[in-house]
Amino acid sequence: MRIALDAMGGDFGPPNLVAGAVMALREYSHINKLYLVGDSEKIEAELKKHGCTDSRIEIFHSTQVVDMSDRAVEAVRRKKDSSISRAVDLVKRDKADAVVSAGHTGAAVAASAIKLRTLPGIDRPGIAAVLPTETNVFVLIDAGANIDARPEHLLQYAFMGTVYSRHVLGYKSPTVGLVSLGEEDVKGNEMTKEVFKMLKASSLNFVGNIEGRHLFEDPVEVVVCDGFVGNVILKTCESISVAIFTWLKHELTRTPMRKVGALFARDAFNTIKEKTNYEEYGGSPLLGVDGICIIAHGASTPLAVKNALRVAAESIEQQVNPHIVEEIRRYNEATAQLEPALH
Amino acid sequence: MRIALDAMGGDFGPPNLVAGAVMALREYSHINKLYLVGDSEKIEAELKKHGCTDSRIEIFHSTQVVDMSDRAVEAVRRKKDSSISRAVDLVKRDKADAVVSAGHTGAAVAASAIKLRTLPGIDRPGIAAVLPTETNVFVLIDAGANIDARPEHLLQYAFMGTVYSRHVLGYKSPTVGLVSLGEEDVKGNEMTKEVFKMLKASSLNFVGNIEGRHLFEDPVEVVVCDGFVGNVILKTCESISVAIFTWLKHELTRTPMRKVGALFARDAFNTIKEKTNYEEYGGSPLLGVDGICIIAHGASTPLAVKNALRVAAESIEQQVNPHIVEEIRRYNEATAQLEPALH
Repeated sequence: MRIALDAMGGDFGPPNLVAGAVMALREYSHINKLYLVGDSEKIEAELKKHGCTDSRIEIFHSTQVVDMSDRAVEAVRRKKDSSISRAVDLVKRDKADAVVSAGHTGAAVAASAIKLRTLPGIDRPGIAAVLPTETNVFVLIDAGANIDARPEHLLQYAFMGTVYSRHVLGYKSPTVGLVSLGEEDVKGNEMTKEVFKMLKASSLNFVGNIEGRHLFEDPVEVVVCDGFVGNVILKTCESISVAIFTWLKHELTRTPMRKVGALFARDAFNTIKEKTNYEEYGGSPLLGVDGICIIAHGASTPLAVKNALRVAAESIEQQVNPHIVEEIRRYNEATAQLEPALH
Repeated sequence: MRIALDAMGGDFGPPNLVAGAVMALREYSHINKLYLVGDSEKIEAELKKHGCTDSRIEIFHSTQVVDMSDRAVEAVRRKKDSSISRAVDLVKRDKADAVVSAGHTGAAVAASAIKLRTLPGIDRPGIAAVLPTETNVFVLIDAGANIDARPEHLLQYAFMGTVYSRHVLGYKSPTVGLVSLGEEDVKGNEMTKEVFKMLKASSLNFVGNIEGRHLFEDPVEVVVCDGFVGNVILKTCESISVAIFTWLKHELTRTPMRKVGALFARDAFNTIKEKTNYEEYGGSPLLGVDGICIIAHGASTPLAVKNALRVAAESIEQQVNPHIVEEIRRYNEATAQLEPALH
């Protein structure tokens, strides 16, 4: 399999991205080709630091970078030679099977949507983030691709999340919850009320509205929300878990007795810390585009980049896109048959 | 001071609410009068259980309860004799200085806004939740009062949050952050982009967009967002902190060595658990109404109810409303003077 990595994006640029790429190549022999897209001088310098001469690497030079302050669609239209645009081009030209970016999320989404196009029946792509519960995981979609979403987009996310949950995470009939204010049917804002009706009328295993507090206790398997809310959930989870562990660390080093206790219980902390560490998840697939695009965290460490490349490789193996197209086609057919009866 | 408690609302109804009221009266001698509003038989039965004959209690009988499945404004209009409506009436008729409810948040907000009216210059009230950082606290506004917010509402929240932060939490010049997607000025959805401009042009100490991940690390003092997003943040924080402690507990009891470690470090856990426990905060003021209304958690335990009554008593002492009116008046004057110059 062949992967194109945007080697310029992310808060830390080429050093972390190239280091992650080197780690991934050492570990994953089934990656046959890894394009590192960006400033070839900088990329070569980083590869040299690692003493990496892996023949599976091909540097693809590009002269521009999308800055975090650029507007997404504008950046794709104007910076034709940006690393993210060129990396997506490699997928479009069938040189690569997937693209991975830790850069400007909006630009990665826009480049993928514009160049690869969305799948038949899908209006907007959505990021499917996988989050841990105590015993399992759930899919949060959209985690930040589409910030001015319409009700039909959320319905499509529910279908895509269900397909992902079934084919990748192995849930037979994934339960779907809609993030709202209050769990009762009538609760929510104008948009969620509309989406609620659509989900209820669909063939999905929709359990109703859920609140933030039910994300981790008694969780559903697919959590549906717009990209603004989804991103807030994802980032809030990250922030509070980092905060709790920082506070705990400070509290645990306050007295000698606590220090001893912390030492004895170290394994327990590490298990939970690992579970809540986004670096382990690496990247989230952008579902709904006609191709494979993995969105990595902007602050990706080399470990996170390596894991994002692992997610890309898994996505190439899993090929959920045909299943998404099929599910949406079936829904649209059923709806079309239903509509004349309603009039 | 005189407080009216909606004794019927909340997930657990009169048992928790009356138990919390009894606790509060034992602890707070400066509460001179506590109205318990709702089904007098049920309330009396609960008081009897606690052997409470405190003369500061006055039961105010009402025959209806707003159900969690009722629509907020409808419930206020139709259920004229609901416990929340009657409790707000007591404030309106100057029989009570503040109202506390753990019931249907939307109904409490609607009853307060309709009966007490909003303050001059305020279009919609907002819930100001206080959340902990490692060394301090910040205000999140709106935490769920107004779910279809417009940009000007968020600007008003920023002013109300600033006043609250200054006069109640003691920050001299509170920093204000706007919850968005990405920190750069151009990031966000249509609404946040509009609010960003308004905040930047205002006299507030606006530091720009913030992401969920910056809530607890390097935090600002006033976090502004719409009620849908704010409620999601609040509930997500609750959910993930409960989850982390549950996971930790299970991990810590897995081996004898870990159990010993946990015992030695018990104080450290308790400190953090207390910090992240909403029961300690009790309730959040609904800012922007011409009166004092405290919104308690639906799942309030007696301890949480007691603390919500404490927050009510503090709010009566602090009287932030005149300061809010003054700040908004000044802003509107400054804007009015500016406008002719712009044309």
